[in-house]
Amino acid sequence: MSQAQQDYKKLHKLSLHARTLQGIESLLHWDQETYMPLGGANIRSEQIKTMAGMIHKERTSKLFGSVLKRLIDLKSGKILQQGLLATQKSALREWRREFLRNTALPASFVEEFASLCSQSMTVWDKSKKENRFDLFLPYLEKVIAMCQKKADYIGYSDHPYDALLDEYEPYLTTKEVKQLFTPLKKSTQNLLKKIQAAKQVQDDFLVGGYGVEEQKSFNEILLRMLEFPLEYGRLDFSSHPFSSSAHPTDGRITTRIHPELLMSNIRTILHECGHAFYEMGLPQEEYGSPLGDAISLGIHESQSRWWETLIGMSKPFWSHCLPLCKQHFKGKLKNVTLDSFWRALNKVEPSFIRVEADEVTYPLHVILRFELEEALIAGSLKPKDIPEAWNGKMKEFFGITPKNNSEGCLQDVHWSMGAFGYFPTYSLGNLYASHFFQAFEKEFPKWAECIAKGEIAFVKEWLKKNIHSHGKCYTSKELLKKVTGKAFSSKAHEDYMTKKYTEVYRL
Amino acid sequence: MSQAQQDYKKLHKLSLHARTLQGIESLLHWDQETYMPLGGANIRSEQIKTMAGMIHKERTSKLFGSVLKRLIDLKSGKILQQGLLATQKSALREWRREFLRNTALPASFVEEFASLCSQSMTVWDKSKKENRFDLFLPYLEKVIAMCQKKADYIGYSDHPYDALLDEYEPYLTTKEVKQLFTPLKKSTQNLLKKIQAAKQVQDDFLVGGYGVEEQKSFNEILLRMLEFPLEYGRLDFSSHPFSSSAHPTDGRITTRIHPELLMSNIRTILHECGHAFYEMGLPQEEYGSPLGDAISLGIHESQSRWWETLIGMSKPFWSHCLPLCKQHFKGKLKNVTLDSFWRALNKVEPSFIRVEADEVTYPLHVILRFELEEALIAGSLKPKDIPEAWNGKMKEFFGITPKNNSEGCLQDVHWSMGAFGYFPTYSLGNLYASHFFQAFEKEFPKWAECIAKGEIAFVKEWLKKNIHSHGKCYTSKELLKKVTGKAFSSKAHEDYMTKKYTEVYRL
Repeated sequence: MSQAQQDYKKLHKLSLHARTLQGIESLLHWDQETYMPLGGANIRSEQIKTMAGMIHKERTSKLFGSVLKRLIDLKSGKILQQGLLATQKSALREWRREFLRNTALPASFVEEFASLCSQSMTVWDKSKKENRFDLFLPYLEKVIAMCQKKADYIGYSDHPYDALLDEYEPYLTTKEVKQLFTPLKKSTQNLLKKIQAAKQVQDDFLVGGYGVEEQKSFNEILLRMLEFPLEYGRLDFSSHPFSSSAHPTDGRITTRIHPELLMSNIRTILHECGHAFYEMGLPQEEYGSPLGDAISLGIHESQSRWWETLIGMSKPFWSHCLPLCKQHFKGKLKNVTLDSFWRALNKVEPSFIRVEADEVTYPLHVILRFELEEALIAGSLKPKDIPEAWNGKMKEFFGITPKNNSEGCLQDVHWSMGAFGYFPTYSLGNLYASHFFQAFEKEFPKWAECIAKGEIAFVKEWLKKNIHSHGKCYTSKELLKKVTGKAFSSKAHEDYMTKKYTEVYRL
Repeated sequence: MSQAQQDYKKLHKLSLHARTLQGIESLLHWDQETYMPLGGANIRSEQIKTMAGMIHKERTSKLFGSVLKRLIDLKSGKILQQGLLATQKSALREWRREFLRNTALPASFVEEFASLCSQSMTVWDKSKKENRFDLFLPYLEKVIAMCQKKADYIGYSDHPYDALLDEYEPYLTTKEVKQLFTPLKKSTQNLLKKIQAAKQVQDDFLVGGYGVEEQKSFNEILLRMLEFPLEYGRLDFSSHPFSSSAHPTDGRITTRIHPELLMSNIRTILHECGHAFYEMGLPQEEYGSPLGDAISLGIHESQSRWWETLIGMSKPFWSHCLPLCKQHFKGKLKNVTLDSFWRALNKVEPSFIRVEADEVTYPLHVILRFELEEALIAGSLKPKDIPEAWNGKMKEFFGITPKNNSEGCLQDVHWSMGAFGYFPTYSLGNLYASHFFQAFEKEFPKWAECIAKGEIAFVKEWLKKNIHSHGKCYTSKELLKKVTGKAFSSKAHEDYMTKKYTEVYRL
């Protein structure tokens, strides 16, 4: 074996160890949200802290750094040895990227930040419940100051927000996000205006009388329909739904059931299945190397939104699924036609809470947060002025004003966690998904007919082949180009939205 | 702070880290037996191996050893510094003991042994299913040879089995176990003969028609009755029941439900609750030090058998519980009196399978295994001769012969796991429990009346105060002396058995 291959193998082995620990850490989180007795919270927090510390230590170890440095120049990113495959060079690009990010922050800073965020989340929870922005403000100020410091440690050429965004969406800049969000915002606002002027759709039959037990047993039908492999995953319940994967062979999703709403649980399962399918589709032989990991949160979200919206809110999907629903929820939906059902589940209405927003208004919620985050990190908006800025944008984007901060700027956990730079990925996911869908449609012009017949495997295979199986081999932009032949823009998504909602609202 | 206290604190901190990792490892095992998707078995095995390796590394680290050596002489066990509390000296005694055991085995041996046992367990499973002792034999031979080697590494003065037994029951020797088991065997055989000559009890009403869902909902009543704190623990289902504790605030038990038998699940829950109560009663402030750990498997088993047999198979307990059962399992047990119910659940009958044995014959199953193990480790019995030796002892002890090895020498997993030295602790548990119970009875002469009224807290408090709260401060023999004022013998248990079964069988 060549020196390059020996070193590469060594690097993979070291990285595999850290990845195994991460898988264990993910089980600790999963258990905490599903089955852990409440009184075990303190020791669980110690366990997670211990694992996180060990993972960080492994990822930044001298040994790892020294092997990495033999293969790739840490400063320039130039590959230093002959005889490496193109995919291995991609892996090295990512190992270098992560190593530089991980070692950029002093251990004392990482600990201080983790400790601050832990307190800040507790205070945020109380502040939200009691509608007390004043309680949260001093913590938020500290969190933002530390995020600015973090950006300085990591470095950036244009905007400090670049350094934060890069954690969740590598290789994408603030400027590029703006170039994507500006037209998206405009077209969304136009579409929303047209929709608001049109005749509203009826959706009263989606609310009321969907019993918890009935919904639970419907989940079995839904999982079977989606060919969710119960040998390699499971579905549980938690107060905040999530997807958790320790390995392609152990992927777990959760949902929550609203006792009145039919679609809340179904959309959640479709969404979380999308995340789980991505993780299950990653190449097992590359586990522990970047080639076995998901590209970015944006690409991850493209997979969840693919199943939740592009498939799960499409007419062909419900052509198959509605009869199953009618059969299962006896007495309900009896006289509802496919068309009226489909229009109902795609009903658009400005609202205060992001996680409950419809497909049209959702990106406006995200863009609002992105604009505030960018200004906060740049220092042009002061934390104390957030409520005013938030409400101003709500009025501007949606024409509505939250009656308090709990349903306004206090609604999301992200800022209390120090996750500045995370929000944009939610809408980037939609943009990626629509892009990918164009390529998928080209390959399967009759996809709708197949989906209407309940066929699912060909969709999953296409996603696995084109997206999942590559791991981090390509950057998100490279993958997009490879799959669609096009550069990243908001156009695919805008086209999809206009076409769909013109039909939903008979515009 | 004195140097001694500084060093002690440092040692506790290092040990706490390893203990935290052990808690995480226990969650991996718990999840594997309860909720893990089957396809995740391979990565789970990697995760457990990784954690086990890291725990071993921490427990044998140079740093740990160097701090330990400053406080206690590794060779003689003499405390080297002034200013330590008596409890701290006990902790040092245990840290030294564990450190010497952990460092006695070369890492290569530990790995080889773990790998052999892992294969051996797989082969055993197949051998048991297919009744093929010949398949298992070559693995068993290797396991026994490695156990002999392990005994040599660890060292012993009298019998190589001492070194193995000491892992599960510290400070107890093979000779002492024999001194306990010899009279126990004799008195048990005598009692069994008398019982077999007496009029048999009816227990047909304990079998048949106990639906799974009804049993499951009865478990809630049972846990409430036992005051099992669901804030700090939970009950789940698994094919082999167990108790798992990551910390006194997170203790989990499992049970299995036999759709025909009333008592199988109830006895299991009582048993596992006993284990869980022990772990929940350990002092939280000592977590990570030996003062926060259980003494031995034997003492652990004394707690499970306390609840399963001494309390759970007693008449006062069922005086309270039977009416609850009658109410819950409607239509069943209607005409069954307390006396006939109590006699039924204490029915004695020689049988092949240890885990299904009654209270009287149980120790004979254990003694059989102990006698074989001792001979195997000493080399006086060859592994190939196990089936013959097993069946010979079955005939001698019980007067019955297994129809095949699957219900004979292949029934238990322990040998395939390399756990030679483990079996005696099952019966030691009964002996300890009966000892403790005498002291308990002295303090609460009216315990039966209280239990009959459904009072439980005073029993749990007594156990916590007298046993759980001490952690490993005392050795098992010291604790026994402290609690009962007596030396360890089989007499307390023999007396209890004779008295009880004289009543059950009207001898």
